[in-house]
Amino acid sequence: MSASFPPGAPRRAVVVEVGLRDGLQAEQLILPTATKLDLARRLIAAGVRHLELTSFVSPRAVPQLADAEELLARLGRPEGVEITALVPNAKGAERALRAGVDGMVVFLSASESHNRKNLNRPIARSLEDVAEVARLGAAAGVPVHAALSVAFGCPFEGEVPVAAVVAIAQRLAELGIRRLSLGDTTGMATPPLVRERVRALREALPELELALHFHNTRGIGLVNAWVGLELGIERFESSIGGLGGCPFAAGATGNVCTEDLVYLLHESGIDTGIDLEALISVARDVERLLGRPLPGQVMKAGPRLKLHPLDAVATARG
Amino acid sequence: MSASFPPGAPRRAVVVEVGLRDGLQAEQLILPTATKLDLARRLIAAGVRHLELTSFVSPRAVPQLADAEELLARLGRPEGVEITALVPNAKGAERALRAGVDGMVVFLSASESHNRKNLNRPIARSLEDVAEVARLGAAAGVPVHAALSVAFGCPFEGEVPVAAVVAIAQRLAELGIRRLSLGDTTGMATPPLVRERVRALREALPELELALHFHNTRGIGLVNAWVGLELGIERFESSIGGLGGCPFAAGATGNVCTEDLVYLLHESGIDTGIDLEALISVARDVERLLGRPLPGQVMKAGPRLKLHPLDAVATARG
Repeated sequence: MSASFPPGAPRRAVVVEVGLRDGLQAEQLILPTATKLDLARRLIAAGVRHLELTSFVSPRAVPQLADAEELLARLGRPEGVEITALVPNAKGAERALRAGVDGMVVFLSASESHNRKNLNRPIARSLEDVAEVARLGAAAGVPVHAALSVAFGCPFEGEVPVAAVVAIAQRLAELGIRRLSLGDTTGMATPPLVRERVRALREALPELELALHFHNTRGIGLVNAWVGLELGIERFESSIGGLGGCPFAAGATGNVCTEDLVYLLHESGIDTGIDLEALISVARDVERLLGRPLPGQVMKAGPRLKLHPLDAVATARG
Repeated sequence: MSASFPPGAPRRAVVVEVGLRDGLQAEQLILPTATKLDLARRLIAAGVRHLELTSFVSPRAVPQLADAEELLARLGRPEGVEITALVPNAKGAERALRAGVDGMVVFLSASESHNRKNLNRPIARSLEDVAEVARLGAAAGVPVHAALSVAFGCPFEGEVPVAAVVAIAQRLAELGIRRLSLGDTTGMATPPLVRERVRALREALPELELALHFHNTRGIGLVNAWVGLELGIERFESSIGGLGGCPFAAGATGNVCTEDLVYLLHESGIDTGIDLEALISVARDVERLLGRPLPGQVMKAGPRLKLHPLDAVATARG
């Protein structure tokens, strides 16, 4: 198709690969730094220009990402690539700034229960942490972005009022945050909620750049992304192969899969700058590394026009 | 939500359960008739009102569905439920009419290669078979519907021109067919192709009722369904648990999953008359019966507002 579809969608979308951070932190297996480095380089070679690479949280809490400094040092600062890392507080920010990142991502939750569970403090206290990180970032000239967990629903509290999301976003904007990612942490986003939240945030904070981070836990992650596209959202976070599970349901899917998202975008005439075949190759290797099937679909079926010989397949029968 | 979303979508959608036909015919395991009967009854108890129950093809070709007559006889004609079966030709139609069905579904492919592979004859010859079935249906007062395979792309030929789809649909309409299902046999449908084909068919054949039958082989089955909803399509075919694989790729998904589709519809304010919890319960039992994980997501994660106790889950970390 020469024209992008749906109407209102951007001609080009930014795909932020979060697998090495959000995917790997949910995996039992701890990958060696050299393996992560190889994956990061291959993702970049495939055209990925935005990598959420690691997290400067406590190595005790997240041993999978304990090599944050080493990984950043060895990867360097590839030309034209935005490398970000999660930072929970000032201590994490100091580590991230020393390690050299293009952006720091602060994170908190839209519900008190999830924030306490995840960060062991109330939202108000997390906003103070954000303020400290924002000051450190500003002093160092490094942008600070924010990720809001359970922005579409909380596994402990249920519905999360849109007003709570807007109130936190307003406070974040006051602290100097210019980009906010809405996280669908346990797959509770739905098309009406995506529309409601994007509209409310745009009305309250027209200058705030929005990113969407969906999970496919209930099978509709890419439908939600599609609704985001219809609203003109240009930035989506996803994980190679769909890496990373859901802590709430054994066997359930977590992050939306990068190749499947890129496939949808390209087939809809929306450019990403990414080579889908190269991405599929990385996804298949990640699956081999982990030794279990990943949820990605395109990596199993191949691109759309991969043809089959007539004599290779049993009759399909209607 | 009180209003349906997206704009243009129907307030109510028809979900046609095809798992017992299209799902089971792709499975190695042959389920006993009593088990199929139990599943059919439980699907009906869950509110399913449209079942593509079985197929009157050769029992040698599809041993999984060799019990078509017995299954129909034992199920009877449940009040308010539309029971359909696939029929390949006049012989199949005679069997289906004797067994007592509410509708017969003829099937053929939009590409010559797939039609020859699947039905061992050219499309022109299949259209003659359709004509015979249409005559038998008309004489018996039983509606004849059509299903068009590879309507969005062919695994042997690649792109299928929209003109080919429209030409076959026109011929079907001349033969008295009033309802056509567009089958995405190997998961090659994309949003632009859905829009293109639905628009072209509506323009050429405004009286023809369209149904959409997507596969999730490349992860975007429900996005395509969403695009269909936006176009006002009211009838979707899906398979409980996502039953039925893809003959072209080991481990790849086939039919869109009924519970996930129903979840999307309900969350978008579109009624189906189906009880999602009851549907999930059936899907989980189908998974147990087959002894392997099915692709359905909602069956693993549960409904959206299923809450979790705060102390039951490990920290999620951002």
